[in-house]
Amino acid sequence: VIASGICGSDNHILDGSIPLHLPAILGHEGAGIVESIGEGVSTVKPGDKVILSALPQCRECDSCLHEKGNCCLKEDMFSPVGLMLDGTSRFTCRGRKVYNIFGTSTFTEYTVMHEFSVVKADDDAPLENVCILACGFPTGYGAAVNAAQVTPGSTCVVFGLGGVGSAVVLGCKAAGASRIIGIDINEGKFEKAKAFGVTDCLNPRNFKKPIQQVIMDMTGFGADFTFEATGTIETMIAALESCNMSYGVCVIIGVPPAKSQLSFDPLLLLSGRVLRGSLLGEYKTRDCIPVLVDDYMKKKIDVDSVITHKLPFVEINKGFELLRSGKWCSMIELS
Amino acid sequence: VIASGICGSDNHILDGSIPLHLPAILGHEGAGIVESIGEGVSTVKPGDKVILSALPQCRECDSCLHEKGNCCLKEDMFSPVGLMLDGTSRFTCRGRKVYNIFGTSTFTEYTVMHEFSVVKADDDAPLENVCILACGFPTGYGAAVNAAQVTPGSTCVVFGLGGVGSAVVLGCKAAGASRIIGIDINEGKFEKAKAFGVTDCLNPRNFKKPIQQVIMDMTGFGADFTFEATGTIETMIAALESCNMSYGVCVIIGVPPAKSQLSFDPLLLLSGRVLRGSLLGEYKTRDCIPVLVDDYMKKKIDVDSVITHKLPFVEINKGFELLRSGKWCSMIELS
Ligand SMILES: NC(=O)c1ccc[n+]([C@@H]2O[C@H](COP(=O)([O-])OP(=O)(O)OC[C@H]3O[C@@H](n4cnc5c(N)ncnc54)[C@H](O)[C@@H]3O)[C@@H](O)[C@H]2O)c1
Ligand SMILES: NC(=O)c1ccc[n+]([C@@H]2O[C@H](COP(=O)([O-])OP(=O)(O)OC[C@H]3O[C@@H](n4cnc5c(N)ncnc54)[C@H](O)[C@@H]3O)[C@@H](O)[C@H]2O)c1
Ligand SMILES: [Zn+2]
Ligand SMILES: [Zn+2]
Ligand SMILES: [Zn+2]
Ligand SMILES: [Zn+2]
Repeated sequence: VIASGICGSDNHILDGSIPLHLPAILGHEGAGIVESIGEGVSTVKPGDKVILSALPQCRECDSCLHEKGNCCLKEDMFSPVGLMLDGTSRFTCRGRKVYNIFGTSTFTEYTVMHEFSVVKADDDAPLENVCILACGFPTGYGAAVNAAQVTPGSTCVVFGLGGVGSAVVLGCKAAGASRIIGIDINEGKFEKAKAFGVTDCLNPRNFKKPIQQVIMDMTGFGADFTFEATGTIETMIAALESCNMSYGVCVIIGVPPAKSQLSFDPLLLLSGRVLRGSLLGEYKTRDCIPVLVDDYMKKKIDVDSVITHKLPFVEINKGFELLRSGKWCSMIELS
Repeated sequence: VIASGICGSDNHILDGSIPLHLPAILGHEGAGIVESIGEGVSTVKPGDKVILSALPQCRECDSCLHEKGNCCLKEDMFSPVGLMLDGTSRFTCRGRKVYNIFGTSTFTEYTVMHEFSVVKADDDAPLENVCILACGFPTGYGAAVNAAQVTPGSTCVVFGLGGVGSAVVLGCKAAGASRIIGIDINEGKFEKAKAFGVTDCLNPRNFKKPIQQVIMDMTGFGADFTFEATGTIETMIAALESCNMSYGVCVIIGVPPAKSQLSFDPLLLLSGRVLRGSLLGEYKTRDCIPVLVDDYMKKKIDVDSVITHKLPFVEINKGFELLRSGKWCSMIELS
């Protein structure tokens, strides 16, 4: 592993809101070089540059075979066991079993992964940048261009301007949105967000009214598209209520704390609203991430600007502190 | 008014689960002949056959002007006042004000409506059949063909096989679904449902497992498309959980009791599910209902089979008894 992003989901694991088998090696936004392959592996070979994906694409399960499915049934995220498919762990620490995370575990020099989670990358791709094409960037970008299918001239609202939310903004912009309202409780995110294309930045704590009411007042009848990229129930409801009652589309991206309940009056939907989730931007990972790498190489997508800090591996805990303090670090380098 | 359907929503008003201003004249699936017009009315003239729609299309509000919007802002369904736009009621009974319902009120010989709720119908259309093109039929049919965009070869599940659910089945069939699972607690609905195209009929009360589990077992990984056409929270959750976690689309059509809360773990959405509502099948009424009337005249859509009983107006209460007893009456004739 040459480099790995730090994703909001890693932090959710650390704070206990995403419960997993522990001890484990975290990290799931990796990029590296294949050291060796097992029997039968045919799509990558030693020396290949690869991106390590939390979402597999086995190409043979029901979801992989479905045109619109990307939640490969080999995934280890929704009911995680933290082991290889054969039930083993390939990590130990002083003789004790250490679990893996989402079939990846990238905060380590070497990891063992199934072929279906390994994405071949361009030989010239700079691994310390494209690692966030493993999760954060496509998650946000694809939520806008694939899940919501943002239309030219539309109004979009993005809740949470972290790594994922920033990529949502870039996706909305690329799709031709004419107004992008960014919401964050950390105003430190606003300057960069504006550079990405956010037209209006709002801190909900500066208003007496609920933020959904503020957005209704600003837009007249609600936004065309709203995105939740923080992972709280409160912002999910705000995102749903902020989109237009008839033609609005609300995309949930944030991972809520375990066993959360989203509760709302279904009349909010009956008028025509669409509420949907989006997993890794609805990309089929092994088919689509190489295309994103190409787009990056051709400077069609600006992945570099989403990376705020690059730290050596020994400073990983500083990376998490930056994430929590809202400075947001998207990357550590293991090389 | 020549004829009017009886819709599940009328019954919800009678049983109090949709609270409205009372006393009122119910009925919102009407067909009739224009008796006279007010100043400035240009799209219909006296003598025209018309369909009376609960959902207006004013052609000038934000929703009407939006390509995908059909929830015209002149609607009187979501926060109903039961009056004309000028604040008056045109009905009285022994000197007392009587409210109107959804801008229609069709259980009466004469009603007064705004032009934006009046849909011109073909001169040869049999009004006592096409009246259900005002609401029940397009609501179900459009939920399948417009809201869900059912794909050829897909598996669909329809909760509730009343008037709306039957039209959903016809829509799924027309869109090429290869398997249509129909769910109802009233097995009396099953024979007709099979004639419409349902391939498997299930009564949830015959199973120990929750019905969503039964559907998972039957389909392997859940349905492509699920539809809720009963109006209970329990079936909404079942419909959501019955669709595929990655590519499944769940369409809510049923109107729940006032102030209901739909509660579920948002992880159900994060894997990629789409949950959406659908109002009057997402049709823009004045543009699209005339096309449905033409399709009916050309025998492209089988509206007649959805009508189970035709009763004279004096037997309207028998009609409601039939609806409640599950025999389901779709029509009364006022002529
Ligand atoms: N669906 C997927 O496939 C997928 C993939 C990756 C990450 N995620 C999830 O996306 C979310 C965002 O990830 P990230 O890496 O960008 O995290 P992050 O911590 O970098 O960003 C979250 C942002 O939300 C802001 N925020 C927190 N509470 C808020 C509130 N109440 N109102 C407004 N803003 C608020 C924070 O200040 C921060 O800027 C996380 O929940 C993560 O688990 C989902
Ligand atoms: N979204 C819209 O635009 C719109 C328009 C019209 C009607 N509606 C709503 O659609 C719903 C259906 O209307 P309808 O006219 O077909 O009503 P209906 O009474 O004719 O049919 C409802 C059916 O659901 C069945 N049912 C009830 N509880 C059930 C359960 N727990 N499990 C399975 N089946 C159950 C009943 O036996 C019946 O067959 C109503 O809630 C109505 O208010 C919505
Ligand atoms: Zn992630
Ligand atoms: Zn797969
Ligand atoms: Zn109706
Ligand atoms: Zn309108």
